Amino acid sequence: MKIEKHGGNIYKYKGRVLDFSANLNPLGMPPEVKQAVLDGIDEYECYPDPDMRELKEAICRRTGVSTEHICCGNGGDDLIYRIILAFRPEKALLVVPVFSEYEEALKLAECQIDYYVLKEENGFHLDDGIIGQIETGGYDMVILCSPNNPTGIPVEQKKITSIIYACHRSGARMLIDECFMDFVLGEENYTVLPRIESLPNVIILKSFTKLFAMAGLRLGFCLCGSPEDAEAVNGCMQTWPVSTPAAKAGIAALTLTDLEDQTRVLVALEREKLISALLGLGFRTYDSQANYIFFRSVIPLDELLLKHSVLIRNCSNYRGLEGCPEHGEYFYRIAVRTEEENRYIIRALTEILSAEQK
Amino acid sequence: MKIEKHGGNIYKYKGRVLDFSANLNPLGMPPEVKQAVLDGIDEYECYPDPDMRELKEAICRRTGVSTEHICCGNGGDDLIYRIILAFRPEKALLVVPVFSEYEEALKLAECQIDYYVLKEENGFHLDDGIIGQIETGGYDMVILCSPNNPTGIPVEQKKITSIIYACHRSGARMLIDECFMDFVLGEENYTVLPRIESLPNVIILKSFTKLFAMAGLRLGFCLCGSPEDAEAVNGCMQTWPVSTPAAKAGIAALTLTDLEDQTRVLVALEREKLISALLGLGFRTYDSQANYIFFRSVIPLDELLLKHSVLIRNCSNYRGLEGCPEHGEYFYRIAVRTEEENRYIIRALTEILSAEQK
Repeated sequence: MKIEKHGGNIYKYKGRVLDFSANLNPLGMPPEVKQAVLDGIDEYECYPDPDMRELKEAICRRTGVSTEHICCGNGGDDLIYRIILAFRPEKALLVVPVFSEYEEALKLAECQIDYYVLKEENGFHLDDGIIGQIETGGYDMVILCSPNNPTGIPVEQKKITSIIYACHRSGARMLIDECFMDFVLGEENYTVLPRIESLPNVIILKSFTKLFAMAGLRLGFCLCGSPEDAEAVNGCMQTWPVSTPAAKAGIAALTLTDLEDQTRVLVALEREKLISALLGLGFRTYDSQANYIFFRSVIPLDELLLKHSVLIRNCSNYRGLEGCPEHGEYFYRIAVRTEEENRYIIRALTEILSAEQK
Repeated sequence: MKIEKHGGNIYKYKGRVLDFSANLNPLGMPPEVKQAVLDGIDEYECYPDPDMRELKEAICRRTGVSTEHICCGNGGDDLIYRIILAFRPEKALLVVPVFSEYEEALKLAECQIDYYVLKEENGFHLDDGIIGQIETGGYDMVILCSPNNPTGIPVEQKKITSIIYACHRSGARMLIDECFMDFVLGEENYTVLPRIESLPNVIILKSFTKLFAMAGLRLGFCLCGSPEDAEAVNGCMQTWPVSTPAAKAGIAALTLTDLEDQTRVLVALEREKLISALLGLGFRTYDSQANYIFFRSVIPLDELLLKHSVLIRNCSNYRGLEGCPEHGEYFYRIAVRTEEENRYIIRALTEILSAEQK
């Protein structure tokens, strides 16, 4: 079976799968967001606003970050390419395993890449060794995800601050992907978003895709510590990256102030139940704070789960996890979904394991 | 007044302008396309199909070009960057004046650019000198628009074939932007689309934006003579360039087989009326076959027309037209719109000119 580059490719199965491979809010797309897309229909004839004024103002109202620090894009992956091509780092440090588009974008920019590998023996937590590496490596850019994708582990405030300062001292831009921070209970212990305007060397990547379950509309944004950086990213490539339905959806989504807390509580509850069940089945799990769980199995699971119509993310094509199947270690990522769906995957895994033992 | 990079920025004027700066079908977005966007609402939660199977099959049915030659993108401008970054030409020939994204994309790819300048004294027609230039220039890529934007002049079959062969002999890829070919009466005298599968060094860029008046949805595609080129463009940058509403709209649009002919007749009729009226007012016009008209004025018009709530495209920021205002030559591009709207702009121009003469 070909391993997918990313989760969410339900089209290969004509939609007849329960998709645990994409990490979307189990509450689904809010009705207010759908309504905004429908209501905007007569405006889709004209070109979108190239300056995305209304959308940027809505992001500013919600985040407190002023509009000259904001760039919007056709989903987070569009912004990854635009950020990296706008600044063309010559040498970058990438914390892995991580979402593969970072490596592809750096290669497109002909950047030399060093990898800082999160270790299984540390439970994939980021250790302090990265500071020394940044100080001596001569990097133009340092990239990490918090919470990490695929592990779900965020970097604590004290550590991320040390990393930012190390980058600042050594003249590196720091790109922090906080696309899954919206799902973290106690976000304030991890996020640097409230401080972004005072961190000129930092760029934070954010997405609408996950929290608002609007992956099909394509909308992401980034917050640049320096307005000059924001201008450079805005000016790099496509003139109209954001479609008008995506902008309408984003503006409506940002007014839903209760959704984030409601989601966090639900996700934390369901995540802990799922982790307990996975541990009970003998899998090794890690400390995810996000809306997905990364775990290790001694047998391959993805094809067996497909027979139960369940799609999960095989992580063996992540850099840093490639060698694992040869050692009888199979890494997977599953989304935290609704109570009923989560029970379904646990039941399927239970059946698979008991059939294996026979 | 700041000159816009592209037409269609009505947002600066809070929508209270009659927009002749963007070249959209005067018939507007077809109701079938709107309905498809509305009907798809429950699918916008999931990630789009990264392989765009359904959309590519619809393009194949309509154009006769098989799916392995097709790439889709977030509007034509997304594809311009992806095509140029996928192949990274070292030296390119760009026929100018032309849509500015080509030059920006080539610069991003750090490509050396030569310009083949269309001359006013030739009425901006492409002359045969380009063949010699291609044969001796050592280009990796040659780029031209047919019909050209901003002039509206397409390149005849015989000439485009000679250019393609010259490119083939000298090892250059040829990128032909046929985004406005849908509006040309007698398209068969100009387009290379029916031959694309036998032209391995050619890539044709096409758009849904103009014919189907769906600029806000962002959808374009390209047809590559070689399937390997198509794979390279598909694999370059963003995994999900096409949003699901754009794909739904595109699939619905491609079933509207009568719209193209109906539009061509209407546009040709209205264009000729507009050209006659512009000539009658003393402007110099050129041989546009597209849904817009490029013309020269001895006085600046854009700010005066804005007082009549009419937005037009000031072309003085096109390469090849920069020096013209100093010589008392002002170039503008206006869309061909509905009969009533076209009468309105002619009335406004008549008033402006008679006020000038007082």
